[in-house]
Amino acid sequence: MSEGRSSHHKVSFATPRGFGTTFKSDLKETFFPDDPFKRFQNEKALGKVKKALEYFVPIFEWLPKYNFRTLRYDLLAGLTVTSLAIPQGISYAKLAQIPPIIGLYSSFVPPLIYAVLGDSKYIAVGNVAACSLLIGQQIGEVVSPTNDPTLFLHLVFTATFVTGIMQLLMGVLRLGILVDFLSHSTITGFMGGTAVIICLQQLKGILGMTSFTNKTDVVAVLTSVFEHKKEWQWQSAVAGIVFLIFLQTTKFIKDKKPKLFWVSAISPLVVVVVGCVYAYFGHADKHGIPIVGDLKKGINPSSIRYLNFDKRYFPAILKTACITGLIALAEGIAIGRSFAITMNEQVDGNKEMIAYGIMNIIGSFTSCYLTTGPFSKTAVNYNAGAKTAMSNAVMSLFMMLVLLLLAPLFSYTPLVALSAIIVSAMLGLIKYEEAFELFKVDKYDFCVCVTAFIGVVFIDMDTGLGLSVGLSLVRALLYVARPGTCKLGKLPDSVLYRDLEQYPDGKKHSGILVLQIGSPIYYANCNYVRERILRWIRDEQSNIDSIGHVEHVLLELSGVITIDMTGIETLSEINKTLGGKGIKLGLINPRIKVMEKMMASHFLDKIGKKNVFLSVEDAVETCRFSLQLSTENSDSSAQHSDDTI
Amino acid sequence: MSEGRSSHHKVSFATPRGFGTTFKSDLKETFFPDDPFKRFQNEKALGKVKKALEYFVPIFEWLPKYNFRTLRYDLLAGLTVTSLAIPQGISYAKLAQIPPIIGLYSSFVPPLIYAVLGDSKYIAVGNVAACSLLIGQQIGEVVSPTNDPTLFLHLVFTATFVTGIMQLLMGVLRLGILVDFLSHSTITGFMGGTAVIICLQQLKGILGMTSFTNKTDVVAVLTSVFEHKKEWQWQSAVAGIVFLIFLQTTKFIKDKKPKLFWVSAISPLVVVVVGCVYAYFGHADKHGIPIVGDLKKGINPSSIRYLNFDKRYFPAILKTACITGLIALAEGIAIGRSFAITMNEQVDGNKEMIAYGIMNIIGSFTSCYLTTGPFSKTAVNYNAGAKTAMSNAVMSLFMMLVLLLLAPLFSYTPLVALSAIIVSAMLGLIKYEEAFELFKVDKYDFCVCVTAFIGVVFIDMDTGLGLSVGLSLVRALLYVARPGTCKLGKLPDSVLYRDLEQYPDGKKHSGILVLQIGSPIYYANCNYVRERILRWIRDEQSNIDSIGHVEHVLLELSGVITIDMTGIETLSEINKTLGGKGIKLGLINPRIKVMEKMMASHFLDKIGKKNVFLSVEDAVETCRFSLQLSTENSDSSAQHSDDTI
Repeated sequence: MSEGRSSHHKVSFATPRGFGTTFKSDLKETFFPDDPFKRFQNEKALGKVKKALEYFVPIFEWLPKYNFRTLRYDLLAGLTVTSLAIPQGISYAKLAQIPPIIGLYSSFVPPLIYAVLGDSKYIAVGNVAACSLLIGQQIGEVVSPTNDPTLFLHLVFTATFVTGIMQLLMGVLRLGILVDFLSHSTITGFMGGTAVIICLQQLKGILGMTSFTNKTDVVAVLTSVFEHKKEWQWQSAVAGIVFLIFLQTTKFIKDKKPKLFWVSAISPLVVVVVGCVYAYFGHADKHGIPIVGDLKKGINPSSIRYLNFDKRYFPAILKTACITGLIALAEGIAIGRSFAITMNEQVDGNKEMIAYGIMNIIGSFTSCYLTTGPFSKTAVNYNAGAKTAMSNAVMSLFMMLVLLLLAPLFSYTPLVALSAIIVSAMLGLIKYEEAFELFKVDKYDFCVCVTAFIGVVFIDMDTGLGLSVGLSLVRALLYVARPGTCKLGKLPDSVLYRDLEQYPDGKKHSGILVLQIGSPIYYANCNYVRERILRWIRDEQSNIDSIGHVEHVLLELSGVITIDMTGIETLSEINKTLGGKGIKLGLINPRIKVMEKMMASHFLDKIGKKNVFLSVEDAVETCRFSLQLSTENSDSSAQHSDDTI
Repeated sequence: MSEGRSSHHKVSFATPRGFGTTFKSDLKETFFPDDPFKRFQNEKALGKVKKALEYFVPIFEWLPKYNFRTLRYDLLAGLTVTSLAIPQGISYAKLAQIPPIIGLYSSFVPPLIYAVLGDSKYIAVGNVAACSLLIGQQIGEVVSPTNDPTLFLHLVFTATFVTGIMQLLMGVLRLGILVDFLSHSTITGFMGGTAVIICLQQLKGILGMTSFTNKTDVVAVLTSVFEHKKEWQWQSAVAGIVFLIFLQTTKFIKDKKPKLFWVSAISPLVVVVVGCVYAYFGHADKHGIPIVGDLKKGINPSSIRYLNFDKRYFPAILKTACITGLIALAEGIAIGRSFAITMNEQVDGNKEMIAYGIMNIIGSFTSCYLTTGPFSKTAVNYNAGAKTAMSNAVMSLFMMLVLLLLAPLFSYTPLVALSAIIVSAMLGLIKYEEAFELFKVDKYDFCVCVTAFIGVVFIDMDTGLGLSVGLSLVRALLYVARPGTCKLGKLPDSVLYRDLEQYPDGKKHSGILVLQIGSPIYYANCNYVRERILRWIRDEQSNIDSIGHVEHVLLELSGVITIDMTGIETLSEINKTLGGKGIKLGLINPRIKVMEKMMASHFLDKIGKKNVFLSVEDAVETCRFSLQLSTENSDSSAQHSDDTI
């Protein structure tokens, strides 16, 4: 009866779709999974232009609906973020070994551009610690930041420019897919490792040292710290510890009472101001506490003529630009998305890339270095109640005022205050609990994470990242190379066939082996698929020796989305090999792409349309019928093959 | 009623298996898919040793059963293959730019070792043209074969040694999986391209030229040929064309009457002998037809002390060894397998690697260069009736006799005869039809093939291979990054839910959207999966605006073999996003690994066990029931939601 139900419908042997149709659909799924053209349908020419403008320049979408009520929120958020942007800008510029004013410049122009082009409402634009350190270290390998600071700075601008171009191209070519390959586990491990080495780097500032290594790995840094013990300044260390305790306390307050987030948000500015006052009146620089020094008034000067494409440095610049660009995109997009999800909204990754790209290109023309959407600022922006990208414009405005009026005041900032700010920010990026969660749920993900961490801490940042991405790719490829196969059994009192490992009470019919294949059959796995199927048959035959041997092998292909030429040949070989052993092969529910290729390559003619079934139940019933016939013919008990084991 | 049938069985929420169990099973599937330990079960200690010996040294398995009857076949096959091995050995050694006698040596020791260790019955061991050319070209980049032939030869031995070590290690570490990533399309394109450039190289021999380029790309070679027009020798060209016509005719005969395969098999030897006789009596070398010259009597001298690991050359050697080693393995294993399949037998790839590895290591100690199981010789061996690896031992024996007695005779071989033999062999490797078949069945495979071909012909061999492998990997990764999703509909008169694109007559229930996901949910595709699901919902809602909006989204997860941490988070986010839109999420048939991770990460608690179903039918019926309830509650017609659209 059950077999009657499902066999009413025939397998579809429709003529394969044309190449154009399938190619277009594959292209769309690969590069336009979010279907951005949908909005342009059913629009007239003028409407289309308007929609396109709104699509590419999001400010046109939200500004017309903007009102004073929203502005109040954005003003407050912008002001709060500015208070964080000043100390962070100065600190991270020091990490990149460039003049601290560049960090302030970077919080003026890029946020303004993001306000126009950005797709996320909560991102607050700024520099990030990991990329700053990476830029400093990578470009430091070709030009010394201490011996030739001007050339070094120009190369940093050039790297920012190249990063921008790369990000823009990735957005235009819709290569957001590349960012997808930086897994969450990789980023967690990488950020954790970076946080550790950045904290260690701050020992220089906290101990008030002047000599320090250019390397970033733990061993080199610790060696360097202890080799120059004589340079340690106790005054600086005491100030550093006091600042750090203050900053961590404000964080603790924020964690306990989320409403008081602003205490933690403005605390770095408080540290800087207190430090400045102390340094100014206490002449701290004469008492073992070095200060930043030399911050000129005035907004960003043009830097377009400083871009340097000398081929001696270009390979290093290109490498730096690619690595930092990808990390910056991954961080910015991931953070934008995670806040959007909290609010049930969506962020278009490819549009974000274009925004970041243009922001960095224009940034590199106006004395800014690499910016993106960092976690710390964005979280503050979100918590301070930002409603639109306008908060970035507000931050930009306040930063302009700071640059025009207050910049010289910050030249008294003690380096130790900056170090304390950085350490405090970094401590939040070492996520033990997340690593532990990974360990519990997925050991391989945990390895990927730990590899990134250990690589960054003990070797260097790009090696750690590379190893971890490599390990993730190996897993993706392993999945393709070793598709899960399983043996299906019929669940009692149902027509369902399920994995016998998962549902051990499933029943098999003697003489019929139903196997499920769970991935495309590809050149990379066809040898495996063939061997594995033969092994299933061997195992089956050695198990049921008393009852009879396998006469039908049915492959359940619902999970085989696609197949390539080698895969078709493999099926053909399996069919031949099984035929040699007197076993009949049947295929169950081949999907549309598989069916099309089976027809194009004439494999369907080889195996015969009658051996292709729509459901497991159909196939098993047909096989049981044929087994029964053959048993009757051979004059043995017709009852036998009807039993299930 | 149908729903009654399937819902008798409950979803399995069994306690997750231990880490040890899953790790062991994953490891086994990855490295031991052929389950080699099976044979050792149920054996006593002595039996285990015997079985192990038979496993690792196949000669112990077949020699005890060997009889005179089989020997007759192997003798004939061995003799036939020897007649091919002599001209091929000399020719391919010339391709590698090493003394021709090395080619003869390489047909003595390696076949003997393969006879002991080899797993395939039909492989006949020898040099291959593509690898010979590649070795000559790659090592030629660091040492000139004309200026320092001794050092060049020593480096070739060293490369052979390193290749052997690499192959042995790959076999021992069960890395046969690496060879799987050289797809059939890549090999077809690479071999075709190599054949073209090798044919072009032979213009040197056929035109009797002395100056020639070291490069292999078409442009460089043709330029070089036409730049030195004055060196062209018409006598040589005429002889070359005559030889070529003869060789191609014998091939034509073989194709027409497969029984006459031996005509084609011995024709190269005939060409050599005729060439030698003509050269000896006609003093051909004085009439514009250069000869091989200088072939000493005697078997392989030891070359173990010549291995040169100087760090100036080692990087080049390592690169050469890795590329040629992989190609040699891919060719040898693929050919062994394809003949085994014809005879319904099996070849163990990992065992073959060990055999090739040891063969090349010992070869490098005895003045041999890289050998594998080439197609031409193997086909001749098979057709000549070889029954076991004994035919290799026979070939080895005959080759020893040739080396001891006849070698000097071959020193009169005209170079043009060798060139004709190579060209004739290569023409068979350019497989138009296969490329055309690829074009018909799978355009992407065709691109992979053409990339290899064009890369090899216009750039160089390793670049062509690299580009093509890269393109294949991109496809494998794209599959992981863009899993096929589809919308399911219920086939009329059945309980089956199938892809609506493939079965357009399937019916949807209003308010219920059933989506099938066909791949693991991974870090690399989780953004795509989320966006795609949201797009399905958008599309659905814009389609059925009049009837009502989607209230239930059911994800059919039978094709999702596994999931990682990011994937779990994605499911969690999707659940949250849908919840925000008032849509309920249901999961259908999560597989064992997915279920285990859902439990470990407590996602199952979030979504609720009642929203996990065993079959689509169960899930849809449950949703219809809840829709009906809510419709009744809202006092509208209970009839409505029962309709299908």
